[in-house]
Amino acid sequence: MPVATVGSVRALDYRDLKEIGVEIIMANTFHLHLKPGDELIKKLGGIHKFMGFDGVIATDSGGFQVFSLGFGMEHGIGKIADNIFLERMKSNITKKGEKWIEVDDEGITFRNPLDGSKMRLTPRKSMEIQSNLGSDIVFVFDECTSPLSDKEYTAKALERTMKWTLECLESYDKNQAIFGIVQGGEYRDLRIKSAEFVSSLDFDGYGIGGSLGKSKQDMLNIISWVIPVLPDDRPRHLLGIGAVEDIFNCVERGIDMFDCVSPTRWARRGHLYVSPESGGSRENKFRIHIKNSEFREDESPVDESCDCFVCRKYSRAYLHHLFVANELTYFRLSAYHNVYFMIRLMEGIRKAIENNYFSELKDEGLKS
Amino acid sequence: MPVATVGSVRALDYRDLKEIGVEIIMANTFHLHLKPGDELIKKLGGIHKFMGFDGVIATDSGGFQVFSLGFGMEHGIGKIADNIFLERMKSNITKKGEKWIEVDDEGITFRNPLDGSKMRLTPRKSMEIQSNLGSDIVFVFDECTSPLSDKEYTAKALERTMKWTLECLESYDKNQAIFGIVQGGEYRDLRIKSAEFVSSLDFDGYGIGGSLGKSKQDMLNIISWVIPVLPDDRPRHLLGIGAVEDIFNCVERGIDMFDCVSPTRWARRGHLYVSPESGGSRENKFRIHIKNSEFREDESPVDESCDCFVCRKYSRAYLHHLFVANELTYFRLSAYHNVYFMIRLMEGIRKAIENNYFSELKDEGLKS
Repeated sequence: MPVATVGSVRALDYRDLKEIGVEIIMANTFHLHLKPGDELIKKLGGIHKFMGFDGVIATDSGGFQVFSLGFGMEHGIGKIADNIFLERMKSNITKKGEKWIEVDDEGITFRNPLDGSKMRLTPRKSMEIQSNLGSDIVFVFDECTSPLSDKEYTAKALERTMKWTLECLESYDKNQAIFGIVQGGEYRDLRIKSAEFVSSLDFDGYGIGGSLGKSKQDMLNIISWVIPVLPDDRPRHLLGIGAVEDIFNCVERGIDMFDCVSPTRWARRGHLYVSPESGGSRENKFRIHIKNSEFREDESPVDESCDCFVCRKYSRAYLHHLFVANELTYFRLSAYHNVYFMIRLMEGIRKAIENNYFSELKDEGLKS
Repeated sequence: MPVATVGSVRALDYRDLKEIGVEIIMANTFHLHLKPGDELIKKLGGIHKFMGFDGVIATDSGGFQVFSLGFGMEHGIGKIADNIFLERMKSNITKKGEKWIEVDDEGITFRNPLDGSKMRLTPRKSMEIQSNLGSDIVFVFDECTSPLSDKEYTAKALERTMKWTLECLESYDKNQAIFGIVQGGEYRDLRIKSAEFVSSLDFDGYGIGGSLGKSKQDMLNIISWVIPVLPDDRPRHLLGIGAVEDIFNCVERGIDMFDCVSPTRWARRGHLYVSPESGGSRENKFRIHIKNSEFREDESPVDESCDCFVCRKYSRAYLHHLFVANELTYFRLSAYHNVYFMIRLMEGIRKAIENNYFSELKDEGLKS
């Protein structure tokens, strides 16, 4: 699922998504709530009409973005928007001895990163916002913990998430599908407890969220603990993950759905996906950095085995040139290719599963 | 003719241009010479293959960009790239008592704005670069004067341009079509002299370049002096002009071709073309500024009478949102619409000329 943070998959439009074969995207509740506002989107006929996408749109709960801003501020991890206003606000808040976000049993209070005003999110509020947005799938409002949270804190956060989960189930818009979320950080018993809890409730699907530990192996362990507990007739969604190798490893362990900004974000930074036929490997994470001078005169397409219009028409040399010149057309072409690549990868994986050769596909894909 | 300064019509790709019906574009010799280099483009199969556009590509001589950088530095007019490096270079050059550009009878010497190195352009060099680029139409290398140049200087510059014109005719790549350029600033006798000179030579078309005076009326006067002199079986191209009202007025006086960055540049800055049916008028220059809060909840398309995919699918509210959020998708959608609008405008004008109702179309279009 490509991510349309504020209502557009960056640099692409509705026709691109259709042509690429994107059936489902993720939009971010927190961002859309701030800008342009969920009430406005409702007034304008909902998120599908607003952004012109008639596929499936899922929205997250908004909590993750608040917490990740908070982690960035307080734990010094994660991404903080590169923004002078945010930096100044952080310094003001720290001086006053305030916290960026305050969690209580009913919800979270935090600062609007756009204007510094106090805001509050609760389970009911998140459901209300997602109802206004009019997405097809909503996610429950949960407390995300950071990889630096200890077990005691993570357990406490899980209790809150469980309470909030029930409130979400009560209050969500019944025209929407709803996914529960498994929390519990990197702790086996907490993850299993959380998975058992959400499995006991009537959800349309299940997300695995929060801290996935400190390493790739931690992440795979967490998935291995959780998947056997979750109902296998409902989709299992791993939130925010999307590297090629991770996808193979996670699908192998039972993950059905992923959302990730990486295809579009990597594209913007010059990293383009390539299959093994064009030099993609585990080592280079199946990406080339188009800025490298080795591509300056390279007449070959980004990816020989890709049949997207970018690879069929343009050379690496042209994309290198556009990237170095910071041309807007670059962002479009690169985003198109990377999303196309990822959608084809998932198609190939689905086909392999249906025809019982997933292991071979994975071994072949990751052998290098 | 949309402008593809460094080899892309900003934010658009070859399929967009085809779909919009763009038959001819202008690329900038000076920019492509600097980056990625005309020799590289030649090696990669020429500008058409490089940028994937199989319509007609014209290239300017490169002189205009050098002179406009120079005017910006020395006369304080025109656009200077918003660039700290340029500012520093300017200050260094001024301290040393050097000039940004030095014109002599053989060509111009100037500083490479990317690295400060000395560069030189001559008529033969310009023809060589344009041959390397492999465009369909090349323009002769001329000396552009600024609106602040006096008559004496303008006359001297015209003498040089005439000399250079002959050198271009001798040395250009005979596989390309070549357009002469009328210079002479805002001085009637000089413009007529220049027009008579180029008309006496075997060009495939004629550009009107250089300073078009200090007002719109000056520009129309210059066109009125020049057009009767130029052969009427060859296209007459007005360089760098492109506002809606100007187009009507200049076509009326005999101009056949325009190139202008304005559709894409205005788009980037939030200005979208609208026809009179959607509020376009001479007063607002047939543009709305999509940033205005009045569009925040506006469910109507940018332009009711436009059938481009942007207007058929998206609301002003969505484009307003994308613009305010600085989303990459905005740049694409806005550029698409503005170029589409301009191409349809010119189509309408051609049809009106063929069917003898140009005056009515113009009066109707500009009545507001």
